Amino acid sequence: MAPVRSLLWRSLRVHQIYGANTDVGKTIFATLLCNATTKIWKNEKTSFLKPVSTGPADEADSCHIAKYAPSTTNSTLIQYDIPASPHLAAKASGKVIPSDHALLQRVYDHVFSHLAQVPGWLFLETAGGVHSPGPSGTSQADIYAPLRVPVILIGDSKLGGISQTIAAFESLKLRGYNIQTVLLFQEAQYENYRYLTDHFCGEHGIPVTTVPQPPPRHENKQQEEAAMNEYYSIASSDPAIHGVLQNLDQHHQDRISRLETMAHVAHKHIWYPFTQQKQLPPGKISIIDSAHGDYFQVFTPPNKDVTAPKHSLLRPAFDGSASWWTQGLGHANSRLSLAASYAAGHYGHVMFAEAIHEPALALAELLLQGMRNPRLTRIFYTDNGSTGCEVAIKMALRASCVRYGWGAGNKDLGIIGLKGSYHGDTIGAMDCAEPNVFNEKTEWYKGRGFWFDYPTVSCVDGKWLVEVPDSLREHLGEGAEFDALAQVFDLQARKNDELCRRYEGYIESVLRDLQHSKRKFGALVLEPVVLGAGGMILVDPLFQSSLVNVVRRSAHLFGDSGQTTSGAVDPNVWTGLPVVFDEVFTGLYRLGRFSAASFLGVQPDISVHAKLLTGGLVPLCATLASESIFSAFESSDKSDALLHGHSYTAHPVGCQVALESVREMQRMDCGGGSWDWAKANGWTGSMLMHESDMGSTQKNNPVNDDQPAVWSMWSREFVESLSRRTTRVTGVWALGSVLAINVHGEDEAGYKSQAAAALQARLREGNDHWNVHSRVLGNMLYIMASQKSSREDIKRLQNLFLESLE
Amino acid sequence: MAPVRSLLWRSLRVHQIYGANTDVGKTIFATLLCNATTKIWKNEKTSFLKPVSTGPADEADSCHIAKYAPSTTNSTLIQYDIPASPHLAAKASGKVIPSDHALLQRVYDHVFSHLAQVPGWLFLETAGGVHSPGPSGTSQADIYAPLRVPVILIGDSKLGGISQTIAAFESLKLRGYNIQTVLLFQEAQYENYRYLTDHFCGEHGIPVTTVPQPPPRHENKQQEEAAMNEYYSIASSDPAIHGVLQNLDQHHQDRISRLETMAHVAHKHIWYPFTQQKQLPPGKISIIDSAHGDYFQVFTPPNKDVTAPKHSLLRPAFDGSASWWTQGLGHANSRLSLAASYAAGHYGHVMFAEAIHEPALALAELLLQGMRNPRLTRIFYTDNGSTGCEVAIKMALRASCVRYGWGAGNKDLGIIGLKGSYHGDTIGAMDCAEPNVFNEKTEWYKGRGFWFDYPTVSCVDGKWLVEVPDSLREHLGEGAEFDALAQVFDLQARKNDELCRRYEGYIESVLRDLQHSKRKFGALVLEPVVLGAGGMILVDPLFQSSLVNVVRRSAHLFGDSGQTTSGAVDPNVWTGLPVVFDEVFTGLYRLGRFSAASFLGVQPDISVHAKLLTGGLVPLCATLASESIFSAFESSDKSDALLHGHSYTAHPVGCQVALESVREMQRMDCGGGSWDWAKANGWTGSMLMHESDMGSTQKNNPVNDDQPAVWSMWSREFVESLSRRTTRVTGVWALGSVLAINVHGEDEAGYKSQAAAALQARLREGNDHWNVHSRVLGNMLYIMASQKSSREDIKRLQNLFLESLE
Repeated sequence: MAPVRSLLWRSLRVHQIYGANTDVGKTIFATLLCNATTKIWKNEKTSFLKPVSTGPADEADSCHIAKYAPSTTNSTLIQYDIPASPHLAAKASGKVIPSDHALLQRVYDHVFSHLAQVPGWLFLETAGGVHSPGPSGTSQADIYAPLRVPVILIGDSKLGGISQTIAAFESLKLRGYNIQTVLLFQEAQYENYRYLTDHFCGEHGIPVTTVPQPPPRHENKQQEEAAMNEYYSIASSDPAIHGVLQNLDQHHQDRISRLETMAHVAHKHIWYPFTQQKQLPPGKISIIDSAHGDYFQVFTPPNKDVTAPKHSLLRPAFDGSASWWTQGLGHANSRLSLAASYAAGHYGHVMFAEAIHEPALALAELLLQGMRNPRLTRIFYTDNGSTGCEVAIKMALRASCVRYGWGAGNKDLGIIGLKGSYHGDTIGAMDCAEPNVFNEKTEWYKGRGFWFDYPTVSCVDGKWLVEVPDSLREHLGEGAEFDALAQVFDLQARKNDELCRRYEGYIESVLRDLQHSKRKFGALVLEPVVLGAGGMILVDPLFQSSLVNVVRRSAHLFGDSGQTTSGAVDPNVWTGLPVVFDEVFTGLYRLGRFSAASFLGVQPDISVHAKLLTGGLVPLCATLASESIFSAFESSDKSDALLHGHSYTAHPVGCQVALESVREMQRMDCGGGSWDWAKANGWTGSMLMHESDMGSTQKNNPVNDDQPAVWSMWSREFVESLSRRTTRVTGVWALGSVLAINVHGEDEAGYKSQAAAALQARLREGNDHWNVHSRVLGNMLYIMASQKSSREDIKRLQNLFLESLE
Repeated sequence: MAPVRSLLWRSLRVHQIYGANTDVGKTIFATLLCNATTKIWKNEKTSFLKPVSTGPADEADSCHIAKYAPSTTNSTLIQYDIPASPHLAAKASGKVIPSDHALLQRVYDHVFSHLAQVPGWLFLETAGGVHSPGPSGTSQADIYAPLRVPVILIGDSKLGGISQTIAAFESLKLRGYNIQTVLLFQEAQYENYRYLTDHFCGEHGIPVTTVPQPPPRHENKQQEEAAMNEYYSIASSDPAIHGVLQNLDQHHQDRISRLETMAHVAHKHIWYPFTQQKQLPPGKISIIDSAHGDYFQVFTPPNKDVTAPKHSLLRPAFDGSASWWTQGLGHANSRLSLAASYAAGHYGHVMFAEAIHEPALALAELLLQGMRNPRLTRIFYTDNGSTGCEVAIKMALRASCVRYGWGAGNKDLGIIGLKGSYHGDTIGAMDCAEPNVFNEKTEWYKGRGFWFDYPTVSCVDGKWLVEVPDSLREHLGEGAEFDALAQVFDLQARKNDELCRRYEGYIESVLRDLQHSKRKFGALVLEPVVLGAGGMILVDPLFQSSLVNVVRRSAHLFGDSGQTTSGAVDPNVWTGLPVVFDEVFTGLYRLGRFSAASFLGVQPDISVHAKLLTGGLVPLCATLASESIFSAFESSDKSDALLHGHSYTAHPVGCQVALESVREMQRMDCGGGSWDWAKANGWTGSMLMHESDMGSTQKNNPVNDDQPAVWSMWSREFVESLSRRTTRVTGVWALGSVLAINVHGEDEAGYKSQAAAALQARLREGNDHWNVHSRVLGNMLYIMASQKSSREDIKRLQNLFLESLE
């Protein structure tokens, strides 16, 4: 089954009818609207569709339509005979209960095959109130949200109806629905329409229209029919109803016109991040109408073949960069929306100097505990990874200055890092990266540090290789080969290898040379396990852990006079240099674990977290630090403090969303091992890379083991199969939700290269039903699933990859 | 009338009963709970309070309580005889309709005087459904939100009740309510409780409890009473109900315990921005339980006097820094919450490279139009003012490098600015500020530029003075004196003054000297009108406009070889140096106008906006630029592009909130002149500073004038009265919503000084009912109202200021 498409055709106006309550007249309004469109758009087709109906078939809403709006094309997709809510009726029916996705697919297929190929109107009627459960038990408002159909909300004119109508409206807004008009019956006693007009029209610009009540029920069926026919005849000619329809028609045209022009307006007025806009004509700009789960809905006018039946103008695209690595719990996740709403309604923003509020404090506790790093006791909030890294650097440099007696404000310090590192685009974060073709043109950038080259890991022709770059071969030898990635991460076993001794010896010799050349350093700054923006490079974890270990035991190489650290018996006090882990990309389950540090078996003194922190909703960053870092800023002089801050520091909305997001990921990972997470996601056997190839520490009882397994959403068979296509693929790796493929490039390697662009283009082409929105870094193409991607989605992606690499 | 206090006492557990719909049994549950608490907590007092009741008094809910829970202390505050919604009943009654604030005050006064001084329980019953309107017409859910009382939600067990209950729950969450338990009647046909238990307990951790339906109505009143009494007797002994109450009691104790310990936990784990934590003991940390409108609710345990009646543990504090200058439309503004929810539900986040979505594009159009600056055509989104300024600097420096043929990446460029400027805390933004005692200790900071000293404006002893600092007196002479601030801003008139010629001459001579000393510059960077973090300094606008004008006509002083700009006839192409306005603090109505640039009569080439952009909810920044800046980055080489970006760039939630926020401020300012805004806020005559003292361009028909008036929320009488207290106050100014008071300091001036701390402490002390949370910058104490602060709030603040300066 393909991903769901939203419903949008040029000549078919689709509207969804939601009721503020059950029994507010949804079907009567639908009948009325069907009659009116038939009258006004004489040469077009009017359709009525009830996806799910319950109760005896001969009493169904579609019968009412058939009787009173006979020109309407009238369908019901699923009929349960039992007169109860769909979730109960479905259960009682004994039939297979369709999944939410299957239900939407049936709606799409029906509309596509039977209704959408000629001009007309379609009214999609829901059942009960906005949150009435569908067959699966999911709230209707959640089920239908991905269709992104504009809503006609039927208000409640009865006692209490003001409240019901506004509450229903808000529940729909919370799920991203566009409510375009409110209709309700005239009623003289409560006059709800007056209040609702002020509310909807005055505050939200949404028109409210009333129509007379239908005639009361008659004993005599014939008289009732006659009265109803008269009612519909009059009401469907009501100029107010014509006004409503003209207005809906206009909205429909406007929506399409806007989608058609958006790329051009964007091309004229948006200054895009990381983009050479000369190479970005309007046609290359994706027009995102909405997003849901793992998919964008992208405006995709059909191709030239005018004879083929027309699909919706919106096509799903798998968000293959997880929206720049932020997305974790699916786009438009209602839980996160509700968390954001709650904090907005309880606080708005609260200035974060000399004050505390619950979301900031609870998140602090959650992160500090979740890291399982006894060094970390403090949290500093900023707005994104770049600012969080600037804070981390300021912390580390000052701690070194104080420890080594260089005095605060020493201007000569650099950092030690890895080649190809990336920590953000503000100048301080940029300065932590080695000079390269991209940052060297930034006027105020100045690389400050020394960057090690290092061995990398990838799967080549079915084997997991630790590859040593040419520049290091004389020091490190030939690398190593493993059967499984779990063995690469089995550092307990590998630390006895000769390679480990070579790593440490090499690192020590470099540090000694740097000391001799009078270079001064204030921090070791690493992206643990994977270098993200630098090219999605899986670094040999043994090299990173060796680097940390050597730095920590080498205070004498950095500035220790012999006295300053001799008293440091507390194992949580930093030694050598403060170790900063930039986990902005790698942390919080992106690689399958709460903290990427756990892969290395070493604990940083400072740790930076963003992106997945808020599950893909709003910017927030947390820089965690140890007490021995914090105390370097304590003095009786204000100017010694860390004088950094942003206006929205620790904004409650971000903190609350992060709480919800991190807790949800922890629930999925409840046993502390990612196996549980995998199981929660429906993953089994073959999708887990390393079930039978776990390293020495993971062999027994993985669930309860302190060291969780090394696993990936991408199947081992798939990864190894890719790795064997050696004519196209030079290497591949997968870990957690990340898949990275290095393809042969004909031009120079690196960011500038267009080598992976062909593969990207094929993924973007996709098929009639869906495609993939991916990003490349030089010769590397990566795909990042969300933490909630289904097994089915991953399989579909894997197949597309294999086809695209034929 | 004082600001409203939230309701929280140690020994009184207050709960608010909301119904998922009208007629769901709120009063029956209230009666039941009252009986149960009376049984369990025998020595405590159980109370029932109905703030507003409609219908005949002898049929009111309180009569039911009186009859069936006779031990309950039972009150109704407002009774309307007409049986209709409170907003209709209030209107029809002919009585004065209480404002929402007055209603809350009556609730507080009643609880404080009659109920809160002894241990017990209070059930506050609402009317109808969650959004049923109160007497004023405001939705109840909005009216009562500031009380921050935990909610008992009565679910709907009838057909359609699942939807009604969940929608009601979401509307309450959207307003920051804590729903602690859901109760509903047992009902066998629909079994809503099963579904609701899965939903609330499973997804939100909120228990759901059912009780049997009450007996049906009897013809015979006596029999009915007997049946009801039996029903209550049994139901109130139900262990499940006891469990509910024990649980609510535990929540209440937990809430207070948490509030009592939060400051200590924060002291241990939070690393505060801009704070020397050695000077911040836990007792100095404000514990913010919630916020609403302009007020925080701060946990404030009562003082020692045990004999005085106890006020709520929560006390309102005016958010006098507008939460670090971000707050514009009031904390917990439902419109902004709903906007955030909508975008979260429609998109989540959408990766912003090579893609476009509606909120980002609509905001781009709105800002570019709203600025009324024909130069600006491009928008670049980042996450906060600091990152937005880094982007602005990168833009400007590169444009200069390209124009003047220095080659991209020239490392020697500085900026021209003003002493005391502040543009953020990331290293690139810091480097734009002159070295001082605070930034000099930051290891990687390096001031890059030249910073002019300048004349400042303040009101001293009733006169508005342009004061020239000693260092400039030999160049600029003695400054000037005006009767009104509007005259200071009448640059049209002032440009003919001798002072203007002196300014320009001086600036030119300095620039020439800089050129002779081979300094190279790439941008002029200014905070227009007011320097914020640098000390809330009102700069003479004539000096700033002169600086821009001189720089623009002096290409020959910066690098122009004579050919490069000769062809530039387009008035929107930058000349001399790119002019960057950092309007992060001063823009978007903080000073009363959409753009602060309009005060200076000059238009920047790059303009940075944040803080008020999102009305005080989530971080977002927009850097606007001209086409002649943008084109400097266009080439066929990717490495020439502006390679800057953040993962959450242009996040839809922020853009949608900004759209709502900016549009709302524009609506308040609908005539283009702030007069309309003032009127919309209920400001009249005396509150406007400059009604009779408008400068030459503003004299006639201010509303329709292109140049809007110069005005402030703070009254002219008040500002001048402060300025006359010359023994305490050295100067004062007010503009838009900002008020800044310079007080005599006994120690050195500047950030480090504690001179304004005494005034701050008095404002923080406040009185029994409220206080003010303000910030100081050296000897300067400032107060910033929101854009929605009421006249009454401002008057109250003015009085407190005058008292505190006695």
